[in-house]
Amino acid sequence: MDTRFGSYSIASSDRFDPEQFFRGSLADLKADGRYRTFLELERRAGQFPLADAPGRSDPVIVWCSNDYLGMGQHPVVLKAMHEAIDRVGTGAGGTRNISGNTRDHVLLERELANLHGKEAALVFATGYVTNEAALSTLAGMIPGCIVYSDALNHASMIAGIRHSKAEKRIFRHNDVEHLEHLMAADDPARPKLVCFESVYSMDADVGPIKAICDVAERYGAMTYLDEVHAVGLYGERGAGVAEREGQMHRLTVIQGTLGKAFGCGGGYIAASAPLIDFVRSHAPGFIFTTSMPPAVAAAARASVAYLKASTSERKRHQEVVATVKSRLKAAGIPVMPSETHLVPVFVGDAHLVRRISDELLTQHGIYIQPINYPTVLRGTERLRITPTPLHTTEQVDHLVEALTAVFRTHGLETGQAA
Amino acid sequence: MDTRFGSYSIASSDRFDPEQFFRGSLADLKADGRYRTFLELERRAGQFPLADAPGRSDPVIVWCSNDYLGMGQHPVVLKAMHEAIDRVGTGAGGTRNISGNTRDHVLLERELANLHGKEAALVFATGYVTNEAALSTLAGMIPGCIVYSDALNHASMIAGIRHSKAEKRIFRHNDVEHLEHLMAADDPARPKLVCFESVYSMDADVGPIKAICDVAERYGAMTYLDEVHAVGLYGERGAGVAEREGQMHRLTVIQGTLGKAFGCGGGYIAASAPLIDFVRSHAPGFIFTTSMPPAVAAAARASVAYLKASTSERKRHQEVVATVKSRLKAAGIPVMPSETHLVPVFVGDAHLVRRISDELLTQHGIYIQPINYPTVLRGTERLRITPTPLHTTEQVDHLVEALTAVFRTHGLETGQAA
Repeated sequence: MDTRFGSYSIASSDRFDPEQFFRGSLADLKADGRYRTFLELERRAGQFPLADAPGRSDPVIVWCSNDYLGMGQHPVVLKAMHEAIDRVGTGAGGTRNISGNTRDHVLLERELANLHGKEAALVFATGYVTNEAALSTLAGMIPGCIVYSDALNHASMIAGIRHSKAEKRIFRHNDVEHLEHLMAADDPARPKLVCFESVYSMDADVGPIKAICDVAERYGAMTYLDEVHAVGLYGERGAGVAEREGQMHRLTVIQGTLGKAFGCGGGYIAASAPLIDFVRSHAPGFIFTTSMPPAVAAAARASVAYLKASTSERKRHQEVVATVKSRLKAAGIPVMPSETHLVPVFVGDAHLVRRISDELLTQHGIYIQPINYPTVLRGTERLRITPTPLHTTEQVDHLVEALTAVFRTHGLETGQAA
Repeated sequence: MDTRFGSYSIASSDRFDPEQFFRGSLADLKADGRYRTFLELERRAGQFPLADAPGRSDPVIVWCSNDYLGMGQHPVVLKAMHEAIDRVGTGAGGTRNISGNTRDHVLLERELANLHGKEAALVFATGYVTNEAALSTLAGMIPGCIVYSDALNHASMIAGIRHSKAEKRIFRHNDVEHLEHLMAADDPARPKLVCFESVYSMDADVGPIKAICDVAERYGAMTYLDEVHAVGLYGERGAGVAEREGQMHRLTVIQGTLGKAFGCGGGYIAASAPLIDFVRSHAPGFIFTTSMPPAVAAAARASVAYLKASTSERKRHQEVVATVKSRLKAAGIPVMPSETHLVPVFVGDAHLVRRISDELLTQHGIYIQPINYPTVLRGTERLRITPTPLHTTEQVDHLVEALTAVFRTHGLETGQAA
């Protein structure tokens, strides 16, 4: 055997040297500009979006958090978490089945079912686990199920679909005609499941929920909508884009996260009671795992309940987003098209995007993580800015000035400058 | 197409009815005695092992928690979690790569690397995710890797190995000769990875770590040891069975959890710096997920640090375990052989084990969850008792009396009675 793998080769006479292999693979990543360095941050509670970073006396202004509304530092959420710790301790102490099913989990699931107008909900450790476990179980256990998956679906949905071993068809991103074309070619009697997202976080566009539901109903297909980048942010009660567009009742499954706009951690699905009970009863990624700390569940529930009633955060969020987009465009920064709260800025080179991110941090105290492959396609490397309702006018001014200065240095302004 | 699946059938002329399918599948589970009902518990912080359950005025005594030492209610751990919330808020706000890498995560990983005498460690959302992500990445990306997997490995290891698509060989449970036989038949140049556990939680036996390391070294194989039911509990500093047996340095990867004896949540691997960096850089289940709430990381770190220094909990734990085992055996209860802190009691029928569990709860205020398929093989359904250092002598007396009464009612005493 003589296998080539990156810069590592195995000759048949030698034994495999794992350390040499790992070092070689990491060297390849570095050469490719894809080696990821994690910035160590210490967020300052109560001073969102400020955080401390090693070796810096001044705080950093975070412009890439998925805590989209700063709820991870909201007094109501902090209080709920503190109280739960005093009441029941830190960990759950078991799987949901074996002593780890606490009142906090049950109440959180009721709150989420109510949020989405569904009969039931089920909470998982993370949004990734939710998609992996729910999709691998549904698509894998429904006999003869065919999955129709949007080409830009998140890695976690792809993992779930892959692990289900169900037949799958990839439809072109947001292309409802292509979806219908694929569905029409399949046996009408076969169970069908359409998987898509509302907000695609890297391209900042929105799935055509109503049109997909129309097609799905025509062909008797189930629908599975990932709203992780939308829950808390859109709709009258913060249930997501499907709520805003009056489509929630038409979706078979709505999937969301408690770790982004809700500011805590964990993921969930909301659906009919039998579907939820089916996933609860069969998904290995749900059954064989310690349930989330009750205090995290309590904090998440407080956040969901708060954002169901309060709309001011969502309103202010959209205002800051609109300001950031228009100000950056006016300054000649290559802002990519966005229908959402996400503001991607095009760079297109793995090394350069890293350098720009470094300069923003060291010269301007601004933290925007570079986004590179495999999160986005090669050649489309970008910065992704996430304005929040807590970013001040001064912080927006500072962001625009800093980006303008750094992009000018690298000759990256567009012709769109006002 | 005419597919039978449990009590649901699809005729080619009909469209698939998902609700009917889910209801039918759930009815099958119920008929089979495998439908799981989660007991809703509200643990009483500071009164471990007591908890409240709906409809009961008196607290329940929990005898099946995986919070093996009650650390989930230890003042040191609670304090660390409270302080972290005040310092940084509730959620992490992002993936480790995008704004979610906090100082609490970094310090926890350092603590874990130190605990196991390894260069580095990597934290994941849960122990399940750790095994799935680490094994699918290692076995899947090391070219030509062959996995040797113990027949009784946990569902999460099986998931990781399966998702890696690597070639695999299953060796008979704890059978080192069989492992060597399989390894000897394979190409010496192929990379090899042996996956096994230290404490097998359902059978309460222990993997032959030294003998497996001997074989692995002879054939140049890497080793991956799951110590989730052992960390915190065994070894001078609570690093697990490998520490107790002086084998830690020989293992390529040690995997553990923060959700059982450490009383918090999350999982991890500890290994060489290049291996950890490799998994960190490639595992989708690590990359594409919000990192754990910093407060959970801080609490876990406090727990690990505390149990590294304090041995009294481990000592008392073993004493209570020995007492429970000998007292139950003396009372004629069919305690299964156990080399560990886990006390399985044989019942052998899915319906009966559920009924016994219900009677213990309703008649005696004792909560021991029934364990059934797929967690254990059919016909080996059991109760699994987990004594802790915080169970009092009176609570042990009460447990023995209650089990004796209930098992006698069902004619299940053994001839072993003293």
